[in-house]
Amino acid sequence: MSELETILLRRDEAGVATLTLNRPEARNALSVALMSELDSELARIARDPAVRVVVLAANGPAFCAGHDLKEMRALQGRDEVAAVFALCSRVMTAIVRLPQPVIAKVHAMATAAGCQLVASCDLAYAATEAKFATPGVNIGLFCSTPMVALSRGVGRKQAMEMLLSGRPINAGTAERWGLVNHVVAAEALDSEVASMARLIASKSAHTLKVGKEAFYRQLEMGLDDAYALASKVMTENMLAMDAAEGIDAFLEKRPPVWRGC
Amino acid sequence: MSELETILLRRDEAGVATLTLNRPEARNALSVALMSELDSELARIARDPAVRVVVLAANGPAFCAGHDLKEMRALQGRDEVAAVFALCSRVMTAIVRLPQPVIAKVHAMATAAGCQLVASCDLAYAATEAKFATPGVNIGLFCSTPMVALSRGVGRKQAMEMLLSGRPINAGTAERWGLVNHVVAAEALDSEVASMARLIASKSAHTLKVGKEAFYRQLEMGLDDAYALASKVMTENMLAMDAAEGIDAFLEKRPPVWRGC
Amino acid sequence: MSELETILLRRDEAGVATLTLNRPEARNALSVALMSELDSELARIARDPAVRVVVLAANGPAFCAGHDLKEMRALQGRDEVAAVFALCSRVMTAIVRLPQPVIAKVHAMATAAGCQLVASCDLAYAATEAKFATPGVNIGLFCSTPMVALSRGVGRKQAMEMLLSGRPINAGTAERWGLVNHVVAAEALDSEVASMARLIASKSAHTLKVGKEAFYRQLEMGLDDAYALASKVMTENMLAMDAAEGIDAFLEKRPPVWRGC
Repeated sequence: MSELETILLRRDEAGVATLTLNRPEARNALSVALMSELDSELARIARDPAVRVVVLAANGPAFCAGHDLKEMRALQGRDEVAAVFALCSRVMTAIVRLPQPVIAKVHAMATAAGCQLVASCDLAYAATEAKFATPGVNIGLFCSTPMVALSRGVGRKQAMEMLLSGRPINAGTAERWGLVNHVVAAEALDSEVASMARLIASKSAHTLKVGKEAFYRQLEMGLDDAYALASKVMTENMLAMDAAEGIDAFLEKRPPVWRGC
Repeated sequence: MSELETILLRRDEAGVATLTLNRPEARNALSVALMSELDSELARIARDPAVRVVVLAANGPAFCAGHDLKEMRALQGRDEVAAVFALCSRVMTAIVRLPQPVIAKVHAMATAAGCQLVASCDLAYAATEAKFATPGVNIGLFCSTPMVALSRGVGRKQAMEMLLSGRPINAGTAERWGLVNHVVAAEALDSEVASMARLIASKSAHTLKVGKEAFYRQLEMGLDDAYALASKVMTENMLAMDAAEGIDAFLEKRPPVWRGC
Repeated sequence: MSELETILLRRDEAGVATLTLNRPEARNALSVALMSELDSELARIARDPAVRVVVLAANGPAFCAGHDLKEMRALQGRDEVAAVFALCSRVMTAIVRLPQPVIAKVHAMATAAGCQLVASCDLAYAATEAKFATPGVNIGLFCSTPMVALSRGVGRKQAMEMLLSGRPINAGTAERWGLVNHVVAAEALDSEVASMARLIASKSAHTLKVGKEAFYRQLEMGLDDAYALASKVMTENMLAMDAAEGIDAFLEKRPPVWRGC
């Protein structure tokens, strides 16, 4: 296999697609090649009705070290630099816009754009050893794009502490601040994530899609607009077949059979 | 008394109006009748200068189970469904827009629109046994309108965990995430809520009204607009009689006598 | 020295400017004179390339008691009152807009506009004995301008509890809610703040400036606009000399030499 095919691994099982960053020797730095792979794979998954949940994982000693600095320094001029950050922002928003929920499985250090990846996922589980940092300030390059995701997941003083100091926080702090959902022992990380992924995969894919989309849209609105949108979405959802089946199954005390619409 | 009159109880005492959901056998499911009662009673309270604080409580084994699913399934067509969600959103925003502060007293499970009720109140106290869930996803009906209130009260990853998994969180977790203010032993719930209600009822109703209204309005604005609004509100507040009296009383070390204007 | 010159002290050391509120007998109440001094000093610092970090501290038994109530009560008419709140809002936004990061060093009680000062800083350290309150409601004057900063730093139910009850919270609660970054023993407060100030002062002032400015701007935007802004800022940052130097130094495993551009 060429490097282009192996820097991002994909394994599908029972509706759960696991994407694994696989540049362990480079601490999974987000080279243009790796971001392009992520971009393509997410676009493929978005159109794949067999995928109900995505897990974002990584191989090697780090979860993800952020951008590839050697590659960045070799860029020539404003347009080349801008293209890299545009690609990065596209990947991050693709996670948010993906119809399927995305769970980050963070076994180790997540830095800069790597921290942004975690912040961009819908859910995140971290091993006790995991750490999180936005250390751009140490190399004169403020983590401006990572902060878009970070500052929407943790309080502003807490985000500012990470951004201004460049210091890593440990997994427990990340959980207290809201950046990750749960911290578990390293040996339990796979099974905890798999358990949550299976649980979510057992839901109606149609319901998850309309709910996730509405979630991020209404967050950007004032209260009245948010309720107008959510009421509309919920009305359509209620009229869809999966809700009819779900409610009937609930009232009849039997498991539902989803039709995905 | 007819059921319509007894599904929502109201008791007034010393400026504190307690509204109690009273469909215990139906786990206080928000039938159209119950939501209409809430809607009317909140409108009445909004015009009642004798009420300074509202407590929202519930009778029976649950705080509130959300929408009435049997009733929902019997609705005919889009317009009927839309009307129910519109009524629900009106009740929830009526709590936010009410001139008086509203305290949720949550003794047990609050689910879906029941969890939304708690999230919509200004303050919430929970008994240790209380739980909170947005389990719509289990019946194919994403908790889209509940998430409007929920996602404005807890972090986005935490809200997403509740919405995507459908799993309940316990009272302690709800406090850590910010969904409720305090968790107390069941036997202390009444007295703790009463104590906070009395404290707030001792303030100027005029001051509470202008402050609460400005609070939710400025939250939806950028910093400059928020300060422009708040400075205007505070200037008017300062020129009102209750502030003059309050400051004089403070400087003279005596209790203030509010005139409500 | 006249009082006007001594109510706000400034000491500069190794790129760290410490501003100290110095009306201990008045619990550092924000008189018009003190706010004007803060306003002027912040404007001076904004133009001073030698200052890389600001520490906001206070002398005496309180950190800051908020507005000067005697002075407020003596104001004549709407215009005079409005001018005071406009000045206050200008000082608070000047902290947010300052190119340099600002760290609050809170050794004791911070009340009303004093609590707002803390909430407006980028970072805050508190001594164990520190307390925080927005008690305006006790004197009929809702803390409407303080709540603009407070409600952007803590959850809405937690902000509402402080605003509606007027009750102080202790330092530990302030940390859990996100209002301050760290609580330390009183005897360690100076050294902890100095250590963080030195760390931040060791970064590129240019990088801190562009990052801080973008942080608060993108927070007010939807996700797409936020990424568009941050990508642009990060591209320009990447093309600046300090990032080139920072990345080279990192790749060459040597300390960077910032040029401030």
